[in-house]
Amino acid sequence: MFVIMVYDIKEKRVAKILKISRKYLTWIQNSVFEGDITEAHFVKLKHELKKAIKKEEDSVVFYTFRTKDYTSREILGIEKGKSETII
Amino acid sequence: MFVIMVYDIKEKRVAKILKISRKYLTWIQNSVFEGDITEAHFVKLKHELKKAIKKEEDSVVFYTFRTKDYTSREILGIEKGKSETII
Repeated sequence: MFVIMVYDIKEKRVAKILKISRKYLTWIQNSVFEGDITEAHFVKLKHELKKAIKKEEDSVVFYTFRTKDYTSREILGIEKGKSETII
Repeated sequence: MFVIMVYDIKEKRVAKILKISRKYLTWIQNSVFEGDITEAHFVKLKHELKKAIKKEEDSVVFYTFRTKDYTSREILGIEKGKSETII
């Protein structure tokens, strides 16, 4: 399956969330990850994130697709995923 | 077409970006909009955003799909799109 993940996390927990997410997905932009992932890994990712976020303050949205069948991904402005400016 | 838009914008320009995006799409979470949009409106949206962002500092990612055919949208933590806590 293909997953697009968008997070909105309080700054103090961002590094932890990035570390978890990078094990499973590819970083695209400051708040976006995407990637092909198995169902089992997706369950693990959600489980790890659930433990790491504070559910009253943070938010993570997952869009899941059977395949990477979106027509296109376009970026306006900086293509952050290509640089290594991330903390 | 169906569009998922994720923005990463310097705070001082966020209000402007939200105002533009809300004319065309539905706000889902702090940095995410989605919605069905015509090709013509999508061109207008990108045009307006291009003028409003600073391309050296901001970033907007669009995923476009022929239809709203994603398998699911799941949210961990707060479902911000349902409240009106946005500025």
